[in-house]
Amino acid sequence: RYGQAEMEDQVGVATGLAWTEVGGELLTIEGLMMPGKGKMTVTGNLRDVMKESISAAASYVRSRALDVGVAPPMFDRRDIHVHVPEGATPKDGPSAGIAMATAVVSVLTGIPIRRDVAMTGEITLRGRVLPIGGLKEKLLAALRGGIATVLIPEENAKDLVDIPDNVKNALEIVPVSRMDEVLQRALVRMPEPIEWTEPEYPAETAGKGSADDDEATFRAH
Amino acid sequence: RYGQAEMEDQVGVATGLAWTEVGGELLTIEGLMMPGKGKMTVTGNLRDVMKESISAAASYVRSRALDVGVAPPMFDRRDIHVHVPEGATPKDGPSAGIAMATAVVSVLTGIPIRRDVAMTGEITLRGRVLPIGGLKEKLLAALRGGIATVLIPEENAKDLVDIPDNVKNALEIVPVSRMDEVLQRALVRMPEPIEWTEPEYPAETAGKGSADDDEATFRAH
Amino acid sequence: RYGQAEMEDQVGVATGLAWTEVGGELLTIEGLMMPGKGKMTVTGNLRDVMKESISAAASYVRSRALDVGVAPPMFDRRDIHVHVPEGATPKDGPSAGIAMATAVVSVLTGIPIRRDVAMTGEITLRGRVLPIGGLKEKLLAALRGGIATVLIPEENAKDLVDIPDNVKNALEIVPVSRMDEVLQRALVRMPEPIEWTEPEYPAETAGKGSADDDEATFRAH
Amino acid sequence: RYGQAEMEDQVGVATGLAWTEVGGELLTIEGLMMPGKGKMTVTGNLRDVMKESISAAASYVRSRALDVGVAPPMFDRRDIHVHVPEGATPKDGPSAGIAMATAVVSVLTGIPIRRDVAMTGEITLRGRVLPIGGLKEKLLAALRGGIATVLIPEENAKDLVDIPDNVKNALEIVPVSRMDEVLQRALVRMPEPIEWTEPEYPAETAGKGSADDDEATFRAH
Amino acid sequence: RYGQAEMEDQVGVATGLAWTEVGGELLTIEGLMMPGKGKMTVTGNLRDVMKESISAAASYVRSRALDVGVAPPMFDRRDIHVHVPEGATPKDGPSAGIAMATAVVSVLTGIPIRRDVAMTGEITLRGRVLPIGGLKEKLLAALRGGIATVLIPEENAKDLVDIPDNVKNALEIVPVSRMDEVLQRALVRMPEPIEWTEPEYPAETAGKGSADDDEATFRAH
Amino acid sequence: RYGQAEMEDQVGVATGLAWTEVGGELLTIEGLMMPGKGKMTVTGNLRDVMKESISAAASYVRSRALDVGVAPPMFDRRDIHVHVPEGATPKDGPSAGIAMATAVVSVLTGIPIRRDVAMTGEITLRGRVLPIGGLKEKLLAALRGGIATVLIPEENAKDLVDIPDNVKNALEIVPVSRMDEVLQRALVRMPEPIEWTEPEYPAETAGKGSADDDEATFRAH
Ligand SMILES: [Ca+2]
Ligand SMILES: [Ca+2]
Ligand SMILES: [Ca+2]
Ligand SMILES: [Ca+2]
Ligand SMILES: [Ca+2]
Ligand SMILES: [Ca+2]
Ligand SMILES: [Ca+2]
Ligand SMILES: [Ca+2]
Ligand SMILES: [Ca+2]
Ligand SMILES: [Ca+2]
Ligand SMILES: [Ca+2]
Ligand SMILES: [Ca+2]
Repeated sequence: RYGQAEMEDQVGVATGLAWTEVGGELLTIEGLMMPGKGKMTVTGNLRDVMKESISAAASYVRSRALDVGVAPPMFDRRDIHVHVPEGATPKDGPSAGIAMATAVVSVLTGIPIRRDVAMTGEITLRGRVLPIGGLKEKLLAALRGGIATVLIPEENAKDLVDIPDNVKNALEIVPVSRMDEVLQRALVRMPEPIEWTEPEYPAETAGKGSADDDEATFRAH
Repeated sequence: RYGQAEMEDQVGVATGLAWTEVGGELLTIEGLMMPGKGKMTVTGNLRDVMKESISAAASYVRSRALDVGVAPPMFDRRDIHVHVPEGATPKDGPSAGIAMATAVVSVLTGIPIRRDVAMTGEITLRGRVLPIGGLKEKLLAALRGGIATVLIPEENAKDLVDIPDNVKNALEIVPVSRMDEVLQRALVRMPEPIEWTEPEYPAETAGKGSADDDEATFRAH
Repeated sequence: RYGQAEMEDQVGVATGLAWTEVGGELLTIEGLMMPGKGKMTVTGNLRDVMKESISAAASYVRSRALDVGVAPPMFDRRDIHVHVPEGATPKDGPSAGIAMATAVVSVLTGIPIRRDVAMTGEITLRGRVLPIGGLKEKLLAALRGGIATVLIPEENAKDLVDIPDNVKNALEIVPVSRMDEVLQRALVRMPEPIEWTEPEYPAETAGKGSADDDEATFRAH
Repeated sequence: RYGQAEMEDQVGVATGLAWTEVGGELLTIEGLMMPGKGKMTVTGNLRDVMKESISAAASYVRSRALDVGVAPPMFDRRDIHVHVPEGATPKDGPSAGIAMATAVVSVLTGIPIRRDVAMTGEITLRGRVLPIGGLKEKLLAALRGGIATVLIPEENAKDLVDIPDNVKNALEIVPVSRMDEVLQRALVRMPEPIEWTEPEYPAETAGKGSADDDEATFRAH
Repeated sequence: RYGQAEMEDQVGVATGLAWTEVGGELLTIEGLMMPGKGKMTVTGNLRDVMKESISAAASYVRSRALDVGVAPPMFDRRDIHVHVPEGATPKDGPSAGIAMATAVVSVLTGIPIRRDVAMTGEITLRGRVLPIGGLKEKLLAALRGGIATVLIPEENAKDLVDIPDNVKNALEIVPVSRMDEVLQRALVRMPEPIEWTEPEYPAETAGKGSADDDEATFRAH
Repeated sequence: RYGQAEMEDQVGVATGLAWTEVGGELLTIEGLMMPGKGKMTVTGNLRDVMKESISAAASYVRSRALDVGVAPPMFDRRDIHVHVPEGATPKDGPSAGIAMATAVVSVLTGIPIRRDVAMTGEITLRGRVLPIGGLKEKLLAALRGGIATVLIPEENAKDLVDIPDNVKNALEIVPVSRMDEVLQRALVRMPEPIEWTEPEYPAETAGKGSADDDEATFRAH
């Protein structure tokens, strides 16, 4: 069953798409949240570029915490583990970035990810989706794996002319340029934003001058 | 006696199965819990992939803490050491994952592991059991070592056609797809789930808005 | 769209200029600030010299905190992540230093960076701008990428004689020697300085002697 | 005098046995306890496998703390240093494990180790003694070094048929299978077990459910 | 302008002298002090020996804190960053030690360094100045760079016979054997020593016996 | 002057003896104590074996703290830096161990080290002095450097037959087997032991049983 779409929508399980010389394949991304102290663990025989893409994905999510309904102190009281199974296979590259971010949002919010959506795209800190390589192989793997919808970077849309019609007919292929489009498609429902006011620190009252009062309140959205 | 099934059911001692070019063999996994501060130590000449499989196993167990009757603060007040004896032999690969998880559950709960059960399978963060290699060699080693029951990944069940009948007759071979099936077979009794409410933090009361009240309580099951 | 000037002025997004054997290109520098504890993360497949240039840029900004309107305790309660997208491409060299510093000032102050300004120059701890290589290739990349204004090190002004007239006519090229000139050109508005008095520590009152009383107060400007 | 049995029974000084291509030799293991914070230092040009055998030995001892009369808080208020002299010689392998554990028990309890006892054997976390290589060379080194009693792994007893009679007559050779047999022979007296009740934590009282009340108390024996 | 003497006396900017196969050159050493927690950062593509020379310089200064008018708690509440610009050039060797120490004293005291003084010499923890190589090349670089005074190690004074007269006539060359001679020449004014009494700790009152009462007070001068 | 005996007795400056293929030489060991938090820094282009010999020396001294008049809390409130000048020269081997220990005792006690005493010998955690190589070259270096007394390991005394008479006549050569003999010869006066009682911890009162009451008090002598 591994290498196939999941059997049910699950919290923290996103489906990415990998690409090697011998073809594409589904890449399960598992996120897990535990009581803890803000530690982030990443495993799965990941090389540096993929590790960094998890770091970027996690920072994007932290910076958008209120937009996804998460109060910042949560990050200090939970540990998050992101794992990419099949530990025997080395994995690299930035193209699982948006799947990483989706997995992290899902574990933080408890909102499941649609089992029939796969996605590929590098993520930036601001949540932009950057282009990837191996589009054809990835779409074929999605097809084989029983995926219904594939999210691809907007900048890869021009490459769709090279994709066989049977693949394009069998899959809903959605070009996206920003993470909020990804979440809209990948989560079973959108998280509701919250407001949150950072507790004031006495020390800060020592500051005086032209700083805008609004700056004392953290507003990520 | 090393390389043979244990003499008695013990807490924290799981039996895995290793596979090299020269054959399979029993792999004792030792877990130990000590008063401490939440540190995890892994030793036994382990290469990175096996170390990561312990990390995944430990996170799986932490995320299921309440299901196995463990209150989360326990993790902050104990150190856990996982050791794989025969320190002179390098060991690698993800296939001891479910044995690692079983050892960790056993030390946390104090419930012994059946001495005549061996197991092989990669574990995911969600407790799924992924397929492994070297099934035949591993089953032969189990037979030689006096094991009665071997837990193998569901996805390896199809490989049983290649296993000699005498092996299949002598061993109870149980395909499993999830960790709870593993624990059911490997522990002398199942742990009882508990409920636990995370203490509230004053800082959190500063948050206001649409966050579901239930989210303030950690529920792992 | 990647490799082109940004679509709008954004907080934390500076445009640097990179140079390889095959030509120059725009280098997006992303800064992000999050609630945290003063941790600095840098990602994007960066080699050591570029990592160190971020460190120097960050120290420069911290040492000028009051000049840019930031009270020092802010640094203990925020994490900053600097990321250079296109994670698959290794990046090195000190010449993105002033873009790094600009991105950090922007995230700390919330003041957007002009989308049509690109910049290249090594930064020193005191905010001096040191010369760089590949000026021609970088200016061509800026032109191709739709940039209007390019900030270059004062010491590279002498190299402008080798730049084709069409490039010099199409771009506003501004030699700069100090970071405050960079900020003046790159930010949509200048931050307003603040005053700030470090809280006194009882222990310090144990000191007696000739120390100037003014020294008990931190003054960065 | 180095390479000879010690002149007197000492606290923290165990005698192991090493084996290289050019023969066996006595290996002094020095343990030292200092006021501290629970830090463990290991030195003596040790390679990874020997370092890990010290880690396993230390965890074994910590898990048996009450059995050897040590209250767990001791581990947080002392630093332990294990050193293997002759710093110019690299040392590796797991076979000094039981000597390491003996040295650690001795420094923790203040009970001296018999100067005329040498020992060789890998230790497991549960205190089992695993077989080693180079038995003959090690016994010869013990003989040359003035040792009276040598503790060897039970599983190596079968190898004694290959040992010259003069060696077997001159040495008391004691096969052991568990650390408590080692301590019985190596220490000048056995430590007395203590009882100890872990202080309760208020947070834990928030837990409710089926957890056995006994679990709130740490019992290592 | 880089590679020339500074335009004005600045706090934290010392001028060292480097030497490679292709000649000598001025080496700007930048020190910066920031509100912080005692962290020391060193950057500038520095190899291990140069990093260690900064460490030795910093310890020398810390050990002489009172002599330069700095109360020890200062070190816990400031971060110091030492950077050697031109990040693209690897730098090594111990000969910038006295320039490093001068930069650190300058940032701690706020006393500027004379812009027309360059210096070369390894520093010891006690502030002795040890001999260096490449004296001739370094003096030529100083001359080219517009330096008026060069501090050299006393033990290199014997090498001055090999230096061309025009160099010796154009530069004031000052052999020094101790850091206080360096500071006297390099700083625009000498710092004034202070006295400081370490706060007493209740725990220490538990000590009894022959310890000299004076030892309870830290005296660095 | 470097490579010669010091000009005066100094606190923290011990004279070791190094040996390479091209001969022996004096090795200055500098110790420095600073207000701090118990951090130990070692510099001077030291390879691993020499670093470990400093670690062993420091632990020996910590374990004998009361014997040298130092109350254990001192170690938590001071940083110690050990540096071996001439940073450009890599240094290795365990034979400077007793000089390291002497330097550490000197900085902790404030007692100067005799400038005309050099020493060579590996140190063990218990303060035993182990034999070294290159005795002849080291003694010649001591003679050239103006040293009066050389401390050598007792086990090297047998090698003195190979040393030319003029060397043996010009130097006082003292075989030593324990650190206390080293301190007796190397320090200008012996430190006076103190007594010290570790403050009691409430948690420990929870322990009950057969532990000897005396064990609750730390006694290093
Ligand atoms: Ca696969
Ligand atoms: Ca959108
Ligand atoms: Ca084996
Ligand atoms: Ca099930
Ligand atoms: Ca590109
Ligand atoms: Ca200016
Ligand atoms: Ca030897
Ligand atoms: Ca027994
Ligand atoms: Ca240069
Ligand atoms: Ca002087
Ligand atoms: Ca020399
Ligand atoms: Ca003695």
